[in-house]
Order: sequence, then structure tokens, then C-alpha cells
Amino acid sequence: MEEIRIFAPATIANVSCGFDILGLCLDTVGDEMVVRKVKEKGIKITKIIGQDLPFETLNNVAGVAGLALLENIDIDIDFGFEIEIYKNIKPGSGIGSSAASSAGAVFAINELLGKPFSANELIFFAMQGEKLASGSAHADNVAPALLGGFTLVRSYDPLEVIKIDSPSELYATVIHPQIEVKTADARSVLKQQVSLNKMVVQMGNLGGLISGLYTSNYDLISRSLHDEIIEPDRSILIPEFNEVKTSAIAAGALGAGISGSGPSIFALCKGEASAQKVAEAMSLVYKNVGIDYDVHVSKINQQGIRILKDIKKTIENIGD
Amino acid sequence: MEEIRIFAPATIANVSCGFDILGLCLDTVGDEMVVRKVKEKGIKITKIIGQDLPFETLNNVAGVAGLALLENIDIDIDFGFEIEIYKNIKPGSGIGSSAASSAGAVFAINELLGKPFSANELIFFAMQGEKLASGSAHADNVAPALLGGFTLVRSYDPLEVIKIDSPSELYATVIHPQIEVKTADARSVLKQQVSLNKMVVQMGNLGGLISGLYTSNYDLISRSLHDEIIEPDRSILIPEFNEVKTSAIAAGALGAGISGSGPSIFALCKGEASAQKVAEAMSLVYKNVGIDYDVHVSKINQQGIRILKDIKKTIENIGD
Repeated sequence: MEEIRIFAPATIANVSCGFDILGLCLDTVGDEMVVRKVKEKGIKITKIIGQDLPFETLNNVAGVAGLALLENIDIDIDFGFEIEIYKNIKPGSGIGSSAASSAGAVFAINELLGKPFSANELIFFAMQGEKLASGSAHADNVAPALLGGFTLVRSYDPLEVIKIDSPSELYATVIHPQIEVKTADARSVLKQQVSLNKMVVQMGNLGGLISGLYTSNYDLISRSLHDEIIEPDRSILIPEFNEVKTSAIAAGALGAGISGSGPSIFALCKGEASAQKVAEAMSLVYKNVGIDYDVHVSKINQQGIRILKDIKKTIENIGD
Repeated sequence: MEEIRIFAPATIANVSCGFDILGLCLDTVGDEMVVRKVKEKGIKITKIIGQDLPFETLNNVAGVAGLALLENIDIDIDFGFEIEIYKNIKPGSGIGSSAASSAGAVFAINELLGKPFSANELIFFAMQGEKLASGSAHADNVAPALLGGFTLVRSYDPLEVIKIDSPSELYATVIHPQIEVKTADARSVLKQQVSLNKMVVQMGNLGGLISGLYTSNYDLISRSLHDEIIEPDRSILIPEFNEVKTSAIAAGALGAGISGSGPSIFALCKGEASAQKVAEAMSLVYKNVGIDYDVHVSKINQQGIRILKDIKKTIENIGD
């Protein structure tokens, strides 16, 4: 294989009670990337369509993640890679824009090399792209992008990611108000100390959510989708957060919260019809106050990044 | 039914990474209780064998828990209850001595009343006994005593307890060095603030443990049995804690930690033979330094409190 075209999905990190450890993979929103072997060694970003992002390899998350992989190959290779990025996910939206590029780059290069690395090893390389984007090598977006489904970062040191079973009718709705919240800013509002009592509440909800996912208990998932610790501080950066969340739940969502570090707001729903209704309710809040938004409804993507067959297909409607 | 004899099992709370929310039920160690209807209204503790504990109803955890139940009955009853407690679990041992009596009392009275209350409601009444014992109405011992198996307190307000599936070959070994650590003292050494980073580590392990229990993944259970937050502070109250823990793991335990607020130390093991070997290794540490101990090996008790058929059977060997 000389070149590969992939779909690199958007992801929702944190998922209310799982700060820095939980994430899930979306299906209907994501980037496309073409990666091909070229004579020149190293990695070159040759095309970025849809967003204005840096082309220098060491300043681009896909470049940095790809280089992290190449530095860990046992054998010498006498060729390199060029990467084209067709960007649908807006940077700073809170649905894993940098993660999609980082994870997509390492996935594609690994395929072109004959898969020397496991998905868990790819997570580690992709995290180096996240480090460039936000200063913190977090795994809660790149893990679901690479593994699909719901993922839990059991440990960062050593890195261990577990895929958590989730019920088949679980859908996510995610709305992106068109303002930018930088991950670094969203982290700076966090308190570095948590009360023991709040930690116990948060852990009960995390345990309940994981239990609900394994047992397809939608009511338990709903009761567990709370964030006592991060959301109260971070939600002040997001316009109309409380109204959007309340509207989503009133329209039937199991729960709602901040997607990653925001400003996107996600809701989990049982079934597509419910997720569509919730999308309308969330949208109405921003319509009424005149804030532009994107909204997506997606089943949980159990596969993660996937190979697209038609390498020559023209990629249209990118970045609108 | 005029009287009932029950087995009220010992329990292990916290289970390393689940402070105040996780618990599990033991099978081979517990109290027996006889509860019977009597003409005099209210609750009277008529016999306590094996331990020196208060007989006054309002000063005895079984009495207080039982009264909490009686206060919540819809109908008037023109009789009361007397309770005999045959105590095998030593108070202050850290394996749910007060919980066994509290849970046993409400379970037995509920049976004699024709089961007006659900197991979850009984947990709430039993917690009132825990409040008397330690000043804190925690549920992490009474829940597994009443429901059996592994339990998660998803929420205290409102109270919601979930039973978590666990693999059939999971055994617990628990050793009780013959010193007393009062729950109130063990709580006073805790820091009331936790760093966000440590919370993330702890939550990763909680998620991993729950995932490992659902998927019967013993390696994952093993990797998840860590406590970054409570154990470092509490273990200083327990003689030879690090040596006992290290010996247990060296002998094949999946993991080990403080049982409840101590001083008992538990280990989880795959299979009975492993649990026996771990019991010997843990015992040897206390033998070598001349500390008296009790040691128990038990399968996880999936049933919780159970009714003993032979009400007249002489209860022997209690309290030795």
C-alpha cells in the first residue's frame, strides 16, 4: 500500500463525570486525511483544506504525532510520508479536532508500514500531538478516536486504555457555539484541589455510568451523568450553557455536559429520534440569542478511525 | 413467622480505590442473630454473646437501625421485637462489625413484618446504626451485607446502591491484627482536600476495577487495586501494613489494601487455593513480629444476609 485515505472522527472527552479519563467516538462528524509514502524521509504536511493550520511538521499535531511514531520504529526506512488534511472539525470546538489529526496521522502511517504498532501504542504517539495542541499529553480524545466506542484511560503511567461496552441505542448530540475556548484557557480555570466529599460524589457517578454502560441501563446512565467538579468552573466560559443543558434534558436527553474543554455541549440520548429532538431543543437556545452554531447527531462509533476505500474521491463541502 | 435466625456477614468497604462507595460481602465470617416478636412494643436487646456491647436500644447499632425501620412503617403494630446477637465479628476490626448488626436487625425485622421494605430501603435504615457507631451514616458496609456481592453507592443523596457483577472465582483474604482502630480516629487522619491529579488517578483505577469485575478480567482488577488517596494516610495506623500488603501480593494476591477504616487488611485473589496461600503469607508477617491476628478466607458472598433454618441450634464457639 502506497497511500491511504481515512476518516478521522470527532470525539467527546470527559463525558461529565470522567474528567481526563473517559471519552467516546462520534460517527457523523470527522476529518478526512490522505497519507502517502514519498521518497523524502520524515513527514511533510502538503495540504490543509477547510481550516487555517500550520504546515510546519513540528508545529502541526499530525506531524508531531507521526514523528513520535517514526522515532519508535525498530527498522530503518528509506522513505517518508506526506499528509493531506481535509478538516471538518473546527479547532477549539471541544470535539477533538487536534485528536482527530494526531490519531489519524499515526493510524494511517501505521497502516502504510504494515501495522507494526498496536492501537494502544498508537494512542501514546497520538498523545504527543495533543501535547503540542494543549500543553498536556491527554489521551481522552485520541483513545476513542483510535479504539472507537467508549474508552477509559485506566492509567497514564503506564498508559493503559480500556474499551467499555456501551448499549447499541446510545446516541450523542453535540452542539458547537461559534466561539473559541482554547484548551489551555479551559484548564486554567480549574481548581487544583478537590474536596474529599465532592470526589466521593464524582466517583459514585463514574462508577454508576460505567455500570450503566455495561448493563445497558439507560436510567442509571442518566442518573450518573453529573459533574460536580469541573463543569461548575468551566461552564462559565460557555454562552447559555445552563439553558442549553436544561433544554436538552427537558427534550429527553439522558444527560448533558461540556464536551471536552468546551465550548461544545454534548447530550447522550436513547435512540436517534430522541437525539434529533434534543438537537432541535439545543439549537433553539442559540437561535433565540443569535449565536451561530453547528450541531451533530451521531451514534456511538464503535470502530473509530476507518479506511475509506475510494482514494480518488473528490472531497467536497469541506470547511463550510 | 414469630422468630427468625440469620447469618449477618462481615464486609469489606472501600476496596482500595472506592472510598466510601465500594464494598463486598464475605461468606465465612459473620454474626448470628435471633430476632423474635414480643408483646412489648419497641426493640429490646436481650442477649449479646461474644463481645461486650451496650444493651440499651438507643446505644446499640442494631437497636437504632431497627427503630429507624419501625418509625417508617405505615401501619400501627401492637407488638415489638427482641434481639439476640451472637457476635463473631470484633468491633473495630474494619470488617463491618456494626454494619452486620445494623443490617441484620433491619433484615430480620423486615422478614418478621412480611417484607414491607425493599433491600434498598433497608440500607437506609441500617445506615442509622452506622451513624451511631462512627458518626457518619455510610452505606459501604451495610449495602454489601444486605445485597451481597460487590456494591457501589452511586449516590448518597438520594441514596442509590447498585450491585456490580463480579467473577465467580474471586476470593477475599482478610487479616485482623488484634489492635483496635476506631472508625472515627481513622477518619480524622484523612485530608479533606485532594489534588485534581490524584483524583484522576483514583478515578481511572475505580473505572478499571468496575470494568474488570464486569468482564471477569483478573489482570485488570489487579492493576486497578490501588488507592492513591486514603491508604497513604491511614496505613500508618496499622502495624506492618506495608509488609503484609507486599507479602500478599508476592504470594499471588491480585491486590491488597485496608479493609474499611482498618486495622484489617484485605487481599483479593483468583481462586481459593491462592487465597489460602495469601492468608499464610499475611499471617507469617504478624507471627514473626508477635502480633496476634485473626485471618479469614472467603468467596464473595453473592446473597448477603441469609436466614438460618434451625432456630433452635445451639450457637457454639462464639467469640473465641
